[in-house]
Amino acid sequence: MTTQHEEAQVTQGIVRIAPEPLAARVGQKLRDAGADQPSVEATVRALMHASLHGVDSHGVRLVGYYDGALRSGEINGHPQVTLRRTAAATAMLDGDDGLGHHTSYRAMEAAIEIAREAGVGAVGATRSSHFGAAGAYALAAAEAGMIGLATTNAESLVALFGSAQAFHGTNPLAVAAPVAGEKPWLLDMATSAIPFNRVLLYRSLGQTLPEAIAANEAGLPVRDPNEAAMLMPMGGADYGFKGAALAGLATVLSAILTGASLDHEMVSLGKGNEPKPPGLGHFFLAIDPARFAGAAVMADGMRRYLDALRAVPPRSGGAPPMAPGDREWRVAEERRRDGIPLDPDTAHFLGF
Amino acid sequence: MTTQHEEAQVTQGIVRIAPEPLAARVGQKLRDAGADQPSVEATVRALMHASLHGVDSHGVRLVGYYDGALRSGEINGHPQVTLRRTAAATAMLDGDDGLGHHTSYRAMEAAIEIAREAGVGAVGATRSSHFGAAGAYALAAAEAGMIGLATTNAESLVALFGSAQAFHGTNPLAVAAPVAGEKPWLLDMATSAIPFNRVLLYRSLGQTLPEAIAANEAGLPVRDPNEAAMLMPMGGADYGFKGAALAGLATVLSAILTGASLDHEMVSLGKGNEPKPPGLGHFFLAIDPARFAGAAVMADGMRRYLDALRAVPPRSGGAPPMAPGDREWRVAEERRRDGIPLDPDTAHFLGF
Repeated sequence: MTTQHEEAQVTQGIVRIAPEPLAARVGQKLRDAGADQPSVEATVRALMHASLHGVDSHGVRLVGYYDGALRSGEINGHPQVTLRRTAAATAMLDGDDGLGHHTSYRAMEAAIEIAREAGVGAVGATRSSHFGAAGAYALAAAEAGMIGLATTNAESLVALFGSAQAFHGTNPLAVAAPVAGEKPWLLDMATSAIPFNRVLLYRSLGQTLPEAIAANEAGLPVRDPNEAAMLMPMGGADYGFKGAALAGLATVLSAILTGASLDHEMVSLGKGNEPKPPGLGHFFLAIDPARFAGAAVMADGMRRYLDALRAVPPRSGGAPPMAPGDREWRVAEERRRDGIPLDPDTAHFLGF
Repeated sequence: MTTQHEEAQVTQGIVRIAPEPLAARVGQKLRDAGADQPSVEATVRALMHASLHGVDSHGVRLVGYYDGALRSGEINGHPQVTLRRTAAATAMLDGDDGLGHHTSYRAMEAAIEIAREAGVGAVGATRSSHFGAAGAYALAAAEAGMIGLATTNAESLVALFGSAQAFHGTNPLAVAAPVAGEKPWLLDMATSAIPFNRVLLYRSLGQTLPEAIAANEAGLPVRDPNEAAMLMPMGGADYGFKGAALAGLATVLSAILTGASLDHEMVSLGKGNEPKPPGLGHFFLAIDPARFAGAAVMADGMRRYLDALRAVPPRSGGAPPMAPGDREWRVAEERRRDGIPLDPDTAHFLGF
């Protein structure tokens, strides 16, 4: 769900590192900062998912932030994660203020296990922290043969539709579904038009922003990235109420249902005067196709759907249509071959 | 989730009818066309939900279509709806080719009952037909104290992002959440930028379409409504891949998981050469807050969320921000007082 812009971010002064040594170095950094082995493994897995699949904004470049948060005590490196089963198909998970990736993989694994018994499994997570790319957890469900949904709220950064004030976070929605014989269908999108780091990219490149994606302090759309104070919701100037509503859905499931902090109440990640756990909430759902029309019918349907989608002719001169995830799998193949590009700051931090 | 345009549709030659006599007349029409009492009750309830809340595209104006489909045998007026419980939290419902509203209320009621036991309930429906406004079923869950989700696929009418061919239907997503002491939070949106009937409205008014909402036969954006051959996905020219992905999500849950017809395989509603059931699928989910942080915590969270949202200052000169559903509840109040506006064709068909 990223565009070519994200890759442009790393075309100047980049180094390319193979996945294995990069993962090892990221793990070492987290271990040095005080994270225990389960936390390290989950965080490396999630960050490498993002970096390998081209979601650089949520990849290994975040390790500096996690390093600081672990060292300051804002994030607990040795969490006692506890799962409380609340009904046949539901559970609540307390992340003990640990790394969000560890909390989130544990929560999705619980949802998958529950779904095997009950048909669907829904798990709310609290006392968590920034979980990276939502798609990592939806993907874990699809790899287990389930439809998976993962969402989180985040601190206010997106203007409410028609307003002059940031209200929702970039609140992603991620869903993945298994596809027999190939990589899953994978939707992972912010409910804002773009992530904020894309604005920073336009700033650094001195380019003009597309229309209706960012606003100034007065809530008015701006094209100059230096004037951008907040993002606009997906849907633009006319239909941004839809993006705002989807951001609200992420908040309802992740924070209101679970009792976590709301977007506008959230302690700024990494910006607090004294270390304070962010108190993030997430929501995970796993659905077992075996309890609906059956895994074989689902596999046949995905096949017909994807074959028809990929056979749709592009607009004159355009590229063939892609299903959600298609771009990511292609990028992962390239990066496994050519290495993962690191910006100079991240490369320096990791000692490459 | 509709705009002021929808209301403009009915400003010329309208009559206004009070809800009770209108509901009675719609029920009589369906009964005359051969629908049994449970089918009539569910369909009247769903159509009146839409007409009362300003979603005129999915309201009582559709009764002519249902009348024809019942009389032709395309829709079964005496369905034997059967529910098969497949696990602790899941069920499949066979609509027996009856009216989609009857199938859908039954499916959501089952999801609610299951969620009371299991924490969440997920029900897939097959052998259904056009179910009207998705929000009607999400709302039923919220009225029972649950978070409810309802979605359906529909026949191809929306260009795939970057393509020259309609692929997905307008595939709505509806979610509702209970709010203590007031009407629910209610999101009900098409995953296309607008519904097709909005294009027809622009045609009849001789107005220019907004940018990036409709395309011509070549898949290129058009402003002249007479050239519009298909809709564009939500997100516009730059970010339409997000709308297309959400439309795909509706198809995955409603049709692929359940084994129903895919959007591009679907028999055209009301356009077939010989009567053939549309074979639509839907998906319903109910989530019981009692099995997460608890109903009281959820109620407190919704209160804080909505109070903060409604206190956000509008852009200079604008109206105060609204939560999803706020506009609908306001319209319903007006229409209970002033009557429901009917276009001349619908008024004539219903004998007003």
